Amino acid sequence: MSTAANISSPASAESVIALLRELAKPLAMENVSLSEALQRVLREPALAPEDQPAFDRSAVDGFAVRLDDARTEFQIVEEIRAGDWKPRELQLGEAVKISTGGALPGAGLQIVMREDAEVSDERLRVTQREPETNIRFRGDDCRAGQILVERGTTLSHGMLAVLASVGHAKPLVTRRPRAVHFATGNEIIPPEQTPQRGQIRDSNSILVRTFLEKWSAEFTQHRLPEDESAAKYQISNIKSEIETADLLLISGGASVGEHDFTRRLLEDLGFEILVSKTTLRPGKPLIVARRGKQIAFGLPGNPLAHFVCLNLFARTVLDSFNGATPKELFQRGVLAGKLEADGNARETFWPAIAELKAGRMELKPLRWSSSGDLTSLAQANALVRVVAGEMNLVAGAEVEFVATDC
Amino acid sequence: MSTAANISSPASAESVIALLRELAKPLAMENVSLSEALQRVLREPALAPEDQPAFDRSAVDGFAVRLDDARTEFQIVEEIRAGDWKPRELQLGEAVKISTGGALPGAGLQIVMREDAEVSDERLRVTQREPETNIRFRGDDCRAGQILVERGTTLSHGMLAVLASVGHAKPLVTRRPRAVHFATGNEIIPPEQTPQRGQIRDSNSILVRTFLEKWSAEFTQHRLPEDESAAKYQISNIKSEIETADLLLISGGASVGEHDFTRRLLEDLGFEILVSKTTLRPGKPLIVARRGKQIAFGLPGNPLAHFVCLNLFARTVLDSFNGATPKELFQRGVLAGKLEADGNARETFWPAIAELKAGRMELKPLRWSSSGDLTSLAQANALVRVVAGEMNLVAGAEVEFVATDC
Repeated sequence: MSTAANISSPASAESVIALLRELAKPLAMENVSLSEALQRVLREPALAPEDQPAFDRSAVDGFAVRLDDARTEFQIVEEIRAGDWKPRELQLGEAVKISTGGALPGAGLQIVMREDAEVSDERLRVTQREPETNIRFRGDDCRAGQILVERGTTLSHGMLAVLASVGHAKPLVTRRPRAVHFATGNEIIPPEQTPQRGQIRDSNSILVRTFLEKWSAEFTQHRLPEDESAAKYQISNIKSEIETADLLLISGGASVGEHDFTRRLLEDLGFEILVSKTTLRPGKPLIVARRGKQIAFGLPGNPLAHFVCLNLFARTVLDSFNGATPKELFQRGVLAGKLEADGNARETFWPAIAELKAGRMELKPLRWSSSGDLTSLAQANALVRVVAGEMNLVAGAEVEFVATDC
Repeated sequence: MSTAANISSPASAESVIALLRELAKPLAMENVSLSEALQRVLREPALAPEDQPAFDRSAVDGFAVRLDDARTEFQIVEEIRAGDWKPRELQLGEAVKISTGGALPGAGLQIVMREDAEVSDERLRVTQREPETNIRFRGDDCRAGQILVERGTTLSHGMLAVLASVGHAKPLVTRRPRAVHFATGNEIIPPEQTPQRGQIRDSNSILVRTFLEKWSAEFTQHRLPEDESAAKYQISNIKSEIETADLLLISGGASVGEHDFTRRLLEDLGFEILVSKTTLRPGKPLIVARRGKQIAFGLPGNPLAHFVCLNLFARTVLDSFNGATPKELFQRGVLAGKLEADGNARETFWPAIAELKAGRMELKPLRWSSSGDLTSLAQANALVRVVAGEMNLVAGAEVEFVATDC
């Protein structure tokens, strides 16, 4: 992995992202029902199997008459509702009552809207004749064989409706990624417990959980004891879970001891450590490792650092696993207030609020006192990328940012 | 409801939205676990119950020494790891080994980073002494009683982490809305079946399903027979479901017969019809009805009209039910290509692709041949609002749009 990063030198965000894109290959495919397919990545183009509409349909409620029949009085000879199939050749002076969506009885017709006609018994009087045919002709929307949804697309609500329309009831998508998460750290207690002096509540497990849920991952979460042999024993009990996982996430405590602990656990499992430190702020003590196709992260324990690493790196891996058409991680926006970067020597991902105002994406940098800062974590929906050594940025400066998930 | 709309005149989008905001009151509240709270609306402000951090913590791995102790050689007298609580008064010449996150043993201290020190046995030699204390002091992030997340906020990943940090393990949120959906239409068949002439596949049920899932709704979906007495019999079998629902959605077929059918079913259930037609394109044959606190929609059957009505109106209702702090439905952006509105007399919601480019939100209008158009439904992530009578809009024109869900 000489192109990207190695153990000895701290890695930049860009090099970690490049490394992860190289490592994480698209997972296997599976056919799923439409109700399971939202936000999954389509792995073959969805073609229209037939013309859409498949037959000439009325676009309105009204009466079909011949285009070449200019009279104003007609005899109603038939009624066609949506779902009916009643072909017939209309004669001059004949009209067919037809509902929106109803299949036209033949060619060379026009639909007079119900509002433009009067009916008594089986007689029709047309009060107004517009030039529009009010017909959706066969193939108007798309032709048989046309690509409706491209391969590599993340399926939206609307796309699912389209797949349903054309009968792709079991689209071929990437299987759900499988992940295992371990929370570590002696000082960590569950959120519902009251901390003793020196302890803090675990906020990373819920962050990881909802993040993985958003990515439709199958996952389990575990708490690892700090005692190394106890931790290894616990891991040995879930060996098969780890064997079948695509992604391992270990939320480290913040101490060097634990950092080494994470590394030793991964090495013990046969993982090769590729990155053990980054140049990021926050997010410096990050471990990236791999074993075959599996990727593991040792995530820094501080909440904001955790948030940054999930949004930059875990997201990159899950996107690659998904086989989605690659897109830029960073977008551009404009600072809505000054950002005091103070020439910090590390590339910084600064928590911010992104908001669209009058068509421009404005980024309001949040007050940020430390990588454990909760107020910024509560408000941030974006991370502004500040290059190493950047001095203070003024309001109006154009910046790169990454939109955080949710 | 004289302020907004009534049965006799077609209603504008604005008046329907105003009516729905007036009708839909916030639902009851419940306490849920954090793992169920993502995207739910918080109904009481989340306060910090204690200072954060709750104690002075080391921000690095290193050695605590007295600020007033300028020597370079120290005796290591103690080790403090994260989670430990070992208060002691340091004497001159004493140092305490401390891990990141570890609780400081007392006041008046500074942490010398591990990189700036050499250790042999219990002796410490400081090679460099920076001015920073490397301490996160009690209350640095927030003070006890400070509001961390405001009432009415939709909970993000980061907010859940913050709630976990401060021990709000069971936040008070709006209960999940309950919905019942009926698909109607003789011509409609399930997506996995091959249509006969005149038939089309049901694409609305999957659209409604994933839309309601996104809103965390509890819901059931049913298929209603076109025969009115059969439909009423089926409804009578799920009376309790309907009684407890907050929202009823009926995806009509497109025919006048069905439109009336939907209206009669709703009236039969005791619903008052408030809107039976709009001025929208697409989305004209929309029914809005209410019964007490319940709201019902008769949605036009065409896929794109369905999509528009869900994204404008069902979303407004669900947002109001949720008790979220009201925000603008429409945002502003810039057209990336011309939009041929042709002076249409109806307010139009034009399918478009919204994309952030160099900090500006650009909207590319999609080719759009009819309200059943599938290709535009597959690609749209936005609807551009085109006022009634608008002629052709050029690239670069500023427009209003609504971002569609997913």
